[in-house]
Amino acid sequence: MSRFLSAKYASLIPYTPGEQPRDMKYVKLNTNESPFPPSPAVAAAVSREAGRLNLYSDPECTLLKASVAEYYGVQPENVLPVNGSDEILYFTFLAYGDDQNAFAFPDISYGFYPVYAEFCNVPKREIPLKEDFSVDYRDYLGVKEHVLIANPNAPTGTCLTVSQIEEIVRSNPDRVVIIDEAYIDFGGESCVPLIQQYENLLVIQTFSKSRSLAGARLGFGIASEALIRDLNTVKYSINPYNVNRMTQAAGVAAIEDDAYYKENARRIISVREETATRLKTLGFTVLPSTANFLFAGSDRIDGETLYRELKARGVLVRHFTKERIKNFCRITIGTPEQMDILLTNIRALLDAKGNATI
Amino acid sequence: MSRFLSAKYASLIPYTPGEQPRDMKYVKLNTNESPFPPSPAVAAAVSREAGRLNLYSDPECTLLKASVAEYYGVQPENVLPVNGSDEILYFTFLAYGDDQNAFAFPDISYGFYPVYAEFCNVPKREIPLKEDFSVDYRDYLGVKEHVLIANPNAPTGTCLTVSQIEEIVRSNPDRVVIIDEAYIDFGGESCVPLIQQYENLLVIQTFSKSRSLAGARLGFGIASEALIRDLNTVKYSINPYNVNRMTQAAGVAAIEDDAYYKENARRIISVREETATRLKTLGFTVLPSTANFLFAGSDRIDGETLYRELKARGVLVRHFTKERIKNFCRITIGTPEQMDILLTNIRALLDAKGNATI
Repeated sequence: MSRFLSAKYASLIPYTPGEQPRDMKYVKLNTNESPFPPSPAVAAAVSREAGRLNLYSDPECTLLKASVAEYYGVQPENVLPVNGSDEILYFTFLAYGDDQNAFAFPDISYGFYPVYAEFCNVPKREIPLKEDFSVDYRDYLGVKEHVLIANPNAPTGTCLTVSQIEEIVRSNPDRVVIIDEAYIDFGGESCVPLIQQYENLLVIQTFSKSRSLAGARLGFGIASEALIRDLNTVKYSINPYNVNRMTQAAGVAAIEDDAYYKENARRIISVREETATRLKTLGFTVLPSTANFLFAGSDRIDGETLYRELKARGVLVRHFTKERIKNFCRITIGTPEQMDILLTNIRALLDAKGNATI
Repeated sequence: MSRFLSAKYASLIPYTPGEQPRDMKYVKLNTNESPFPPSPAVAAAVSREAGRLNLYSDPECTLLKASVAEYYGVQPENVLPVNGSDEILYFTFLAYGDDQNAFAFPDISYGFYPVYAEFCNVPKREIPLKEDFSVDYRDYLGVKEHVLIANPNAPTGTCLTVSQIEEIVRSNPDRVVIIDEAYIDFGGESCVPLIQQYENLLVIQTFSKSRSLAGARLGFGIASEALIRDLNTVKYSINPYNVNRMTQAAGVAAIEDDAYYKENARRIISVREETATRLKTLGFTVLPSTANFLFAGSDRIDGETLYRELKARGVLVRHFTKERIKNFCRITIGTPEQMDILLTNIRALLDAKGNATI
């Protein structure tokens, strides 16, 4: 830090993204990317935009909003596209948080939530997951704080039902309830339809996972017009042209080629279930997942060793140092071939360990 | 606003971007876009990225930083690419502003500066331009505030010299001096070389103007390693993947095809000088410009009428309602053909007015 940095950030610890090493080629199962490239329609749309990049992007994202709205059965005024869903999470902490208005979220969830709280100087209450690592929705009924839940949760992969979320939303009429559905397309049920009834519900989604656009940076919020207006006020106070031309076009094309992405999600779910079975056969505890990743740990090898040994063998998974989950690794679902490499390596590791113990 | 919005934003007035009307096709001279498309190398680079958008962009922007650093004769550690230069302006207000650390900037300049100050709750001091609408650098020597100057200034187009800026930087060793060089490639001299000597200087540039990439959203900061570290801390607390894959690739390709953009800038300068002469012939006061726009006003027609009448005739320019400049319009330099249309329309307007008065 320079000597000029504002004292308010003296103790700040920024978010650490999943590692993107460049020293060798890895089987990369650490940042929940899709193993499938975007639809060819996306490439065509992006190429069409390339020649007119001298002109600003539409700050209103008119076409993209219309496209998202139609797909989800809402109005364009209910939609706010952003530069990756991280951006709208940040807007949300700014818009609704202050010293009088704290945020409550699970103690084990997306690691950026506490960073936003700290950075925006918003008090937080981290509510412990249940013994089985699931979110207990009853912990969030009639609370004092705004509520923020990743559903499915990450890195655990477990999911609440729409009726459980509705209870949370209904029981907190004077609080904003934010449901981060980054992984919803892999088996969970979206609570987007609830925004028609509840003005205090904000649903956040992303094109990064099921729509294979992590590298294009496109997320969006769906909510009542009133909440979207708030978040637009924040956007227009920070970066009105936050979504570039190519990404807007990519988003529209991705929505149009829905069949392609639905089929990919179906395949990922199938590989996920098969991988879970194989990990369990090797003695792993595997949490039930409705996401494009598995959260798994074993008494036979501790989480950090598993992560390090796999990395040495060219397979990247994500390990978290938090006490309660330090024996687990989060493993992105890749192609069947990538999963074979993962499991072959895990088996070899366990065998080597077994022999060493004898 | 919803009833949930934090009270801290109760009186907030966000930035208003230049209008992007969709009711008809305009000769668009209101947002300082380049009339030239990006280099064909950009389109090729973007198309190459389209197939791997399923993978996250490099949060470190390694290749792009290396490319910008080499071009400007600095180290990659001196460079921070961002999602349009608005984003790094925002980061700067966050990083260095607080109730003890105000910002000083010209009273007539980029309209987003006071919005950032307000939004980030940073006190501001707006220093009046001189009678001739130029920045008096002596107003910024040894001040109490961090200093932020657009150079060339917008919407006026006037420019300080590097030695004047060096005096400002040297006289404020305990303050950060931010020079926003969005328009520097149209005749001004960049102060980037000064960052080697002064740890308190941050230079901000953009690919939007001279490099024809407004729609790709790419800006960057160049400064001492210490300042770049601060701004990275902010970035990693908000949106680590803020620059998408396509834009990173577009940036690298644009730097490589420098000859193309240099030639375009030369043409824009030539058309600007010719347009200035023609406007003066029509009786306009035209400020000396080192940017890709002219700031012009006439006693024969007031600024708002000029803007409205031109819009009705299919030509968009930008008008500002601030008292001191309300008789001026900011006119982007387009192609010679676009300038002909502009001038033909202005002439017709003045003639019609002349006849009406008789």
